[in-house]
Amino acid sequence: MSAVTALETDLSATMLELGRKARAAADTLAFAEPEKKTAALVAAADALDTRRDDLLSANALDMQAAETKGISKAFLDRLKLTDQRIDAMIEGLRTIAALPDPVGAVMAEWTRPNGLVMSRVRTPLGVIGVIFESRPNVTADAGALTLKSGNAVILRGGSDSVNSSRAIHACLVEGLKSAGLPEHAIQIVPTTDRAAVGEMLQGLGGTIDVIVPRGGKTLVARVEAEARVPVFAHLEGICHTYIDASADRDMAVAVTLNAKMRRTGICGATETLLVHGDAVDTHLKPVIAALIDKGCEIRGDARVQSMIPEAVAATEEDWRTEYEDSIISVKVVEDVGAAIAHIGKYSSHHTEAIIAEDPKAVARFFNEVDSAILMHNVSTQFADGGEFGFGGEIGIATGKFHARGPVGVEQLCTFKYLVRGTGQTRP
Amino acid sequence: MSAVTALETDLSATMLELGRKARAAADTLAFAEPEKKTAALVAAADALDTRRDDLLSANALDMQAAETKGISKAFLDRLKLTDQRIDAMIEGLRTIAALPDPVGAVMAEWTRPNGLVMSRVRTPLGVIGVIFESRPNVTADAGALTLKSGNAVILRGGSDSVNSSRAIHACLVEGLKSAGLPEHAIQIVPTTDRAAVGEMLQGLGGTIDVIVPRGGKTLVARVEAEARVPVFAHLEGICHTYIDASADRDMAVAVTLNAKMRRTGICGATETLLVHGDAVDTHLKPVIAALIDKGCEIRGDARVQSMIPEAVAATEEDWRTEYEDSIISVKVVEDVGAAIAHIGKYSSHHTEAIIAEDPKAVARFFNEVDSAILMHNVSTQFADGGEFGFGGEIGIATGKFHARGPVGVEQLCTFKYLVRGTGQTRP
Repeated sequence: MSAVTALETDLSATMLELGRKARAAADTLAFAEPEKKTAALVAAADALDTRRDDLLSANALDMQAAETKGISKAFLDRLKLTDQRIDAMIEGLRTIAALPDPVGAVMAEWTRPNGLVMSRVRTPLGVIGVIFESRPNVTADAGALTLKSGNAVILRGGSDSVNSSRAIHACLVEGLKSAGLPEHAIQIVPTTDRAAVGEMLQGLGGTIDVIVPRGGKTLVARVEAEARVPVFAHLEGICHTYIDASADRDMAVAVTLNAKMRRTGICGATETLLVHGDAVDTHLKPVIAALIDKGCEIRGDARVQSMIPEAVAATEEDWRTEYEDSIISVKVVEDVGAAIAHIGKYSSHHTEAIIAEDPKAVARFFNEVDSAILMHNVSTQFADGGEFGFGGEIGIATGKFHARGPVGVEQLCTFKYLVRGTGQTRP
Repeated sequence: MSAVTALETDLSATMLELGRKARAAADTLAFAEPEKKTAALVAAADALDTRRDDLLSANALDMQAAETKGISKAFLDRLKLTDQRIDAMIEGLRTIAALPDPVGAVMAEWTRPNGLVMSRVRTPLGVIGVIFESRPNVTADAGALTLKSGNAVILRGGSDSVNSSRAIHACLVEGLKSAGLPEHAIQIVPTTDRAAVGEMLQGLGGTIDVIVPRGGKTLVARVEAEARVPVFAHLEGICHTYIDASADRDMAVAVTLNAKMRRTGICGATETLLVHGDAVDTHLKPVIAALIDKGCEIRGDARVQSMIPEAVAATEEDWRTEYEDSIISVKVVEDVGAAIAHIGKYSSHHTEAIIAEDPKAVARFFNEVDSAILMHNVSTQFADGGEFGFGGEIGIATGKFHARGPVGVEQLCTFKYLVRGTGQTRP
């Protein structure tokens, strides 16, 4: 056996063992008392607080390595841990701990004319594989949400955040142990070898029930090509804001500015602005002035360019690009129908907003656009499980199956039907 | 180009064209007035009634060919159309027509502290590919359910039912046309070439959103290996009935007899009977006597064999077999825990029933068995969308994702979130 083959075999064996342990943990977790899961999450939050210095020094190692590699500003922003972001993680864990337990919840109950009492109750999915970019907080969020929903999880974060992820993971394991839950309920892949992702996509010998990929085009394309298990697709967020001629001008300025610039690196950030042809002078000019004032680069169609000297020409590629940066593509459209057609062609089916006062335009937009989240007179940056009241999210699913939109604890569950009878036989 | 390659190219082109037409129909259907969908279904039901003789003579051709091939009795039973079964199809279409329209239904609505009003509304999935065995009524059921749920469908039935399916399909198209809906909303694959299934599993150039396979092990194995689009898994139904020591004896006899023998060819028929060790003399003996009296073959473990002279020895393969015939495998187990373990190992996660008066045994069974449908003191033959009040079903999904259990019009939909604001920006 060559050295390479031996290494591959080692990786395969390591990953299969990870899967086997996750499956065993999932079998226990499915019937774990809700109080234990809550206690584990509260203890993990406490551990994050206590080990704050460990987290910051682990993250400093990651940041240093990333800066040396000359990685983009948007990427570094996502990678960085601060005291404030650790506070947010702790708060996130406590919020998830306080959520009602989803497992066993009765989603619906009805009685049939023959006396059969039927109910649909929530049950865990089993073992979830999460593949994500170098964003350390996902380790805490994904670990907490899968635990609360009674699932075991195998986390594979970006290699650039490996030290931060391991430090956070240690706190989660401390929580599990202190609550008497299996420590393999939350595991991280112990290697940065990219081949580990391939092993996960094969399902680790049938132990992984679903893969949740969070990341850019390259990752999603790979997952789509290789996955042999179900996938909750988390495509990029090519989100649109459309300003109708009927929009309130001040609202259009404030909402668009927030939708693009509040935090450019999140998937709910608006990447393309569409504006009704009759709103160019009234709405588009002040919106663009505000964006430029905040340091945003404008890439526009011919009409935008003719009006805004600073605007660069938008190429076909621009309409398909998630910038995750202070850049926006801008197009003037004939009406709401043309905006819907543009979105249908270029959107990643994540989140789209309409700013309008005309109820007909809003109704048409809500009816005809087929994306996970549609918004009216709201910043697209509200596309977030926490903002939806889900107590956090593992990501925003852009596929149509099972989970769509923010994936919280309920979306990480499936259900079963319980039928209660008194001896009925079918005629 | 060789003749074979030319044929393959022709098939590919034909199938892609089918997909293209389905997609165009789906885009129209998604916004079709509910009244039009209802009118199309009622007209299709009328057409089935009017063309009754066409249906019976088409089916006679299929039956003749199948009998010549020496196909099993269970298979012939599924293939056969009678006046009574045509009545049932007509009744099915009228029931589905009368269901509330699922598209646009508000599944949940809530308001956030910042004033955002959120709702989750049902939307169609798009284009559904249904691959099924030679059971003519599926053409009517699947066509009607997908239409009601605003989806286009491509139906590929077993080649042995091709004449029956075409005759039924003609009635559905008549309904669509009379209601002014696109006739390509419901299409059947125009060839019995098995390669057409392969083309569907590749997604027909991205036009198919989901595949619903209904059939035996061979079909499901092929779908799992080849599908490049999401699948609502419809595995076989290896359903179990467990008789606890606490069961009412007469109920155990009546329910088990019905669960196995009412109709042996349906997926909700019980294939394996598990009996508590303390209930052998009291319950198992009369149950088996009743089964034998109805002509059922018994395949039992050692304990069953020692008691019942007619019992054949059950092999490991028997516990994994969906007989779809008058055969039952029978095992004596130590207690409800052992029954749950057997089900966990051999079940296809379709439907399992417990006959018991002890609430603890029932609670444990309901909690620990992970199948789509669990029943208490009921015949497993109630595992059916119509019996659940869904107005029909396209099948019983045995996977954990999106649709689980009976797949009716609601399960053929996805949803989107609508967020209504008044200019909120995210802090």
